[in-house]
Amino acid sequence: MAADLTAVTLIEKHRPTLDQALEAIRTRAYWSPHPEHPKAYGESAPGDGQAAFEALRGKRLGLDQPGTDGWVGDEVSPYGPELGVEYPHPDVDVLLPAMRAAMPSWRDAGPEVRAMVCLEILSRINARTHEFAHAVMHTSGQAFMMAFQAGGPHAQDRGLEAVAYAYVEQVRTPDAADWSKPQGKRDPINLSKQFTAVPRGISLLIGCNTFPTWNGYPGLFASLATGNAVLVKPHPRAVLPLALTVAVAREVLAEAGFDPNLVALATERSGEGLAKTLAVRPEIKIIDYTGSTAFGDWLEANARQAQVYTEKAGVNTVVIDSTDDYKGMLGNLAFSLSLYSGQMCTTPQNLLIPREGIGTDAGHKSYDEVVTDLAGAVQGLLGDDARANALLGAIVNPQVRERIESAGGIGEVALASRTVQNPEFPEATVRTPVIVKLDGAKPDDEAAYLSECFGPVSFAVAMDSASDAVELLRRTVREKGAMTVGAYTTSSEVEQQVEQACLEECAQLSLNLTGGVYVNQTAAFSDFHGSGGNPAANSALCDGAFVANRFRTVEVRRPA
Amino acid sequence: MAADLTAVTLIEKHRPTLDQALEAIRTRAYWSPHPEHPKAYGESAPGDGQAAFEALRGKRLGLDQPGTDGWVGDEVSPYGPELGVEYPHPDVDVLLPAMRAAMPSWRDAGPEVRAMVCLEILSRINARTHEFAHAVMHTSGQAFMMAFQAGGPHAQDRGLEAVAYAYVEQVRTPDAADWSKPQGKRDPINLSKQFTAVPRGISLLIGCNTFPTWNGYPGLFASLATGNAVLVKPHPRAVLPLALTVAVAREVLAEAGFDPNLVALATERSGEGLAKTLAVRPEIKIIDYTGSTAFGDWLEANARQAQVYTEKAGVNTVVIDSTDDYKGMLGNLAFSLSLYSGQMCTTPQNLLIPREGIGTDAGHKSYDEVVTDLAGAVQGLLGDDARANALLGAIVNPQVRERIESAGGIGEVALASRTVQNPEFPEATVRTPVIVKLDGAKPDDEAAYLSECFGPVSFAVAMDSASDAVELLRRTVREKGAMTVGAYTTSSEVEQQVEQACLEECAQLSLNLTGGVYVNQTAAFSDFHGSGGNPAANSALCDGAFVANRFRTVEVRRPA
Repeated sequence: MAADLTAVTLIEKHRPTLDQALEAIRTRAYWSPHPEHPKAYGESAPGDGQAAFEALRGKRLGLDQPGTDGWVGDEVSPYGPELGVEYPHPDVDVLLPAMRAAMPSWRDAGPEVRAMVCLEILSRINARTHEFAHAVMHTSGQAFMMAFQAGGPHAQDRGLEAVAYAYVEQVRTPDAADWSKPQGKRDPINLSKQFTAVPRGISLLIGCNTFPTWNGYPGLFASLATGNAVLVKPHPRAVLPLALTVAVAREVLAEAGFDPNLVALATERSGEGLAKTLAVRPEIKIIDYTGSTAFGDWLEANARQAQVYTEKAGVNTVVIDSTDDYKGMLGNLAFSLSLYSGQMCTTPQNLLIPREGIGTDAGHKSYDEVVTDLAGAVQGLLGDDARANALLGAIVNPQVRERIESAGGIGEVALASRTVQNPEFPEATVRTPVIVKLDGAKPDDEAAYLSECFGPVSFAVAMDSASDAVELLRRTVREKGAMTVGAYTTSSEVEQQVEQACLEECAQLSLNLTGGVYVNQTAAFSDFHGSGGNPAANSALCDGAFVANRFRTVEVRRPA
Repeated sequence: MAADLTAVTLIEKHRPTLDQALEAIRTRAYWSPHPEHPKAYGESAPGDGQAAFEALRGKRLGLDQPGTDGWVGDEVSPYGPELGVEYPHPDVDVLLPAMRAAMPSWRDAGPEVRAMVCLEILSRINARTHEFAHAVMHTSGQAFMMAFQAGGPHAQDRGLEAVAYAYVEQVRTPDAADWSKPQGKRDPINLSKQFTAVPRGISLLIGCNTFPTWNGYPGLFASLATGNAVLVKPHPRAVLPLALTVAVAREVLAEAGFDPNLVALATERSGEGLAKTLAVRPEIKIIDYTGSTAFGDWLEANARQAQVYTEKAGVNTVVIDSTDDYKGMLGNLAFSLSLYSGQMCTTPQNLLIPREGIGTDAGHKSYDEVVTDLAGAVQGLLGDDARANALLGAIVNPQVRERIESAGGIGEVALASRTVQNPEFPEATVRTPVIVKLDGAKPDDEAAYLSECFGPVSFAVAMDSASDAVELLRRTVREKGAMTVGAYTTSSEVEQQVEQACLEECAQLSLNLTGGVYVNQTAAFSDFHGSGGNPAANSALCDGAFVANRFRTVEVRRPA
């Protein structure tokens, strides 16, 4: 190891953070070592970060990887500009063996040193949060503040959380044990046993377009911390944030005396379908994937040599039965529907509202009134263009725009989408959400509300009763999956029904959120993202199951 | 709950045992609460146990299960007698919904009460160990002492170990948390969060012929302790031990106030293929399987709605390089090859011996001498018929007998199998092991030593060098899988090579065993059975990965 990154200095620097993370995942109280306010990063950080991002544009991002057979990259910011960054394209027959060769010494380093190296990587990424924020903004289309927070500290939190789970899982079994079995009057039988956490192989991270770091870091760090090498295959439209991540990881690994090929980037040529090729390579033993259900299902069915962790599509529901804070409910929902133009796997889609209306602290509100008032709340929230731009960000791809434009064909539009001008980035497509009215009793409407409509389109579905709403919630989770469920009710009976449905169908429930926490946001160390128990995802961020099968324990026993 | 099985009394009775088990899996020191000596069960236990077993024969074993549409059972003891026990045949369209209905109150009982109920089941099974020993003996063909120990206390240990892992995994997340996020000068955001371990659904245990309880209890108890219902589908030739287990479980569940349908038996009609039907039912969310690679692979590929834990076939290797206790090595290996006529997934098959011979404390021994001396050690061990019967047990099925009989066609026979008479059970097929000489340099011999030959047939493979032996070990584990690896060496260099091979190919290694511990035996709470990281098994008994995905954690959060 280099003088400044010995095991001793790394442990001195990062062990307290790891211990706090371990405590946080035990108590699930609020905790984060990564400030979420841009100002916390120092006065010069915003300018430095932007300059660092600008300096990357139009250049090759060299990673000094073995087996580079070309340069690729054609990212265009959803805000307009071409990024012009080129990345190494891998000859996988050269790169994969180099990655395998890097693993034995990483395995021998043990769980604590691996955790410390991961924390050093995260800490260097954290120091460059402003730069990463621009990279996330100009690949995902998130507004700057969201790109900063979700792509920066919140993603780093999820990475650290995965390291903590990985560490604790590996040290549940001691390094060594003396085993002495009594034999009555004879001498006991004594064995000396050694236990080693061994990696499964090369772990493949298949990144997504919308949250390259937030959805990528848990798998990346869980696999690296458990001794595996990690090959990062970013979404072709969101390479830069993960390429920077790989660069930092390689830099830290080398400085700490390990082979940098433990982490490598696999950028693909346009239309190459590299994920599909890599996913069935025998060297690939773990896959982390966020994206479409179709490809997630394909991975689960075909990448049989690997442990496959998928987050796919779902249909998120909010049951609106009653509230004692009508204004708070509307404001909270309006924010949830608007944030990043609903381009989150956790954004509510189906708002189930009794057709007879709901009881509120502002009196009884009919179905129509609720829908109209919610539409009004969204319009109010997004009435100012500067605020709208800051919340909405840009539409990430043409398919989302098409969904907005064809929403009128699905049903009666209660809130039409408005085009917002972005003065800084005039080419950006910025659109406010659409709300469409549907009827839960009309069979014709079912196809719409039982399909994921990714983007800022939600359905206000009129239901015969709260019980019917719970039944539809149950069916939706069971058949289509859900990353989130919300409910508003003042009735303990309805609350119990919704809770039972979520416990039985395995979905994460937010009840009566009216303040500054939203159904589509989860906090690392405390909230689980997804349940891993319904069709939307086969794993949760983060729990024991997410890390326990990324390594195996090999025992060597001998007479003592 | 009944008066004597309230949560309070159960906790008072069993919590100390659970705590000791939790400590044992942390330290992996020797521990067991289940005595392995038959005398420990009281003076009348042997007679009572045998009488209880005899009383079962020729009768119906009623379990009072819903949806029983007939009675089946045609078990014949490998020792000769027909058991004549009939078991309920399930109408699964009635039984499965009844099992699902039983789950919510079991979920609501929480991890500790579930663990306590599981420990009560195990403790009642333990009290009937003599009866179970006869049931295991007359279905598996194990000799009585082995059926007693492996089918009784050792199986109970593995069940308890799974309960301990399941318990600790579920309580890693607290039941509730207060989450308070600072907001600078504003009031913090306060959320109250509840976390519930929820079951996946119905868990299917597909039992095996040779170790119905030992291989069945880990999955059964891991699933039950994590809130799932468990449907037990025994091997048609080894129903009785698991049927008795189900009976005890149902009795305890009912007494503790739970629905007995949480555990049910699914016995199949001859040739029905019920496992295949059940495995793809949507209600089945977990499968535990021990058996052939072909069906294990089929389950992994087709039971896509379920978490599938498999133990399949492998090829176990012992590298014989050198020893400082030649006699001890020969005796230890002879015992390993003989125990239960090699009908264990952990029995060594390939003995890799340098053709130039090995160094020993008794001087240099040529390849031929080693093979001859090992054959002699087996003959010595089994020379006395009474001792041979006590070690070998009976051949479990005609396929094993055929393998013994055709072993001479594979290569030069260094030790021929001898037929042993069993005076108590003259119909039993009792056979001593065969050792066949093969050459690792002859391509023609490869097909033999690279296939599993289940039963008392092992291959003494002549190798060019110890390094070649390690390479063949490596290749065998990678391509065919291995439950166990053994090695004898006094060379630190060879030892290191073997260790590296096992760490990299993920196999459990026993080094230089010469005393009363054998490569084919593992002790619960300390040794891992299988690694879960090579083709022989996709899971290990027992670790976090074996339990962590049998439940999911559902979070409900609301403003505090």
